[in-house]
Amino acid sequence: MPRFFMAGSNFKGGTVYIRGRDAEHVRVLRLRPGEDVVICDGEGTDYKCRLVTADKEQAEAEVLEVVRCPAEPSVKVTVLCGLPKGDRSDYIIQKCVEAGAYEILFFQSSRCVARPENLEKKLERWQRIAEEAAKQSGRGIIPQVAWAGELAEALDVAVKKDLGLFMYETGEREALNAVLDANREIQTAAIITGPEGGFAEFEAKLAKICGLHICSMGERILRCETAPVVALTAAMYATGNLS
Amino acid sequence: MPRFFMAGSNFKGGTVYIRGRDAEHVRVLRLRPGEDVVICDGEGTDYKCRLVTADKEQAEAEVLEVVRCPAEPSVKVTVLCGLPKGDRSDYIIQKCVEAGAYEILFFQSSRCVARPENLEKKLERWQRIAEEAAKQSGRGIIPQVAWAGELAEALDVAVKKDLGLFMYETGEREALNAVLDANREIQTAAIITGPEGGFAEFEAKLAKICGLHICSMGERILRCETAPVVALTAAMYATGNLS
Repeated sequence: MPRFFMAGSNFKGGTVYIRGRDAEHVRVLRLRPGEDVVICDGEGTDYKCRLVTADKEQAEAEVLEVVRCPAEPSVKVTVLCGLPKGDRSDYIIQKCVEAGAYEILFFQSSRCVARPENLEKKLERWQRIAEEAAKQSGRGIIPQVAWAGELAEALDVAVKKDLGLFMYETGEREALNAVLDANREIQTAAIITGPEGGFAEFEAKLAKICGLHICSMGERILRCETAPVVALTAAMYATGNLS
Repeated sequence: MPRFFMAGSNFKGGTVYIRGRDAEHVRVLRLRPGEDVVICDGEGTDYKCRLVTADKEQAEAEVLEVVRCPAEPSVKVTVLCGLPKGDRSDYIIQKCVEAGAYEILFFQSSRCVARPENLEKKLERWQRIAEEAAKQSGRGIIPQVAWAGELAEALDVAVKKDLGLFMYETGEREALNAVLDANREIQTAAIITGPEGGFAEFEAKLAKICGLHICSMGERILRCETAPVVALTAAMYATGNLS
């Protein structure tokens, strides 16, 4: 069923007013009065609606049923990634939104090759990718994509969550599944993954001092755009959000 | 450490003979005598070696240590995917090899839009992608990529495994985590996912009759190239191969 995200201000009584780009989208999809759509308030609530009118500039829909969006995970996982090269960030955003991320932040760390240039433009494109993926996968929110700054700021985000995981490739680490199995009841979590060259040792040490779990996902070396999706999927599995 | 896959025939006594494309690769990487490489027999055994000579046509390496490849999962998961459009198959192969797939098969089902044209050429490219991903992620085998044929043939592959999972988006399904948690000791498994349009109801019924588990991964709708990676990661997590 076609899915739209719309702020609460568009809801008046039992009617939703669809305007602007969304009205355009109704037209492109050739939706006619009588057809059903889902309008999500972006805060986890789905309004199952039937179109009443559909003009060029505006469409109106009658609310039939209000439900909690069933696709929204019970745990809010913030994914924090070292800025990768090229379009790998696009890929991370699309896949992590599908896999259930609450928000996606990028940061700069010592081994980042990519530079945070044209950030404003990039953030606009990244947010559009997140919105498309949220519509396509039936999410109840549009996960925010943002720039966290330096690694220290990413760590600061992570320490405020119920569980903070720092993915690292070498040295003394905890097994990801052991850490997750011991924390199935969390409500918030942060997953930190590195850029192409991974993290420097001092960065992992810093994360450990901050109280994050330094985690291993086994001996297979995952690409920087694969690691966040795999770690997030593991977190969804462990918390019962993959069933 | 640079990684090469080589058949047993190249091993003689305590020496490995590196020829052809691999010798070329040694040259491209500017590896010199005295440097260490890992040579994998493609059957799960890693030979840690030191280069003794490195000429244009051939290099020789002395075997220092023989170990079971630590990156190889304990469970052999066959991933079977409805043939997707465009380069989504490339993506599935790369990510599933990283995530630990034993082999990757594509098949044709009723809602496939893509056609299996130029299969010979495609299989060649697919196998090259699998080899690159296997080297990069440190696998102990090069997962085979093959064409399974019709869905019936994919089902036939799946029923021979310890556990067969058929991912389906609607109707009565088992929760993936419940099925996996009850089958942590499996040695082989098959995961079947659909093409862009998913599976028709009759196909899911057929899979059920064959004894496969019809599984849900929750209410988020995953793209056809995302679903196999997520399901495979869940299987790796459940069987202790993500730690």
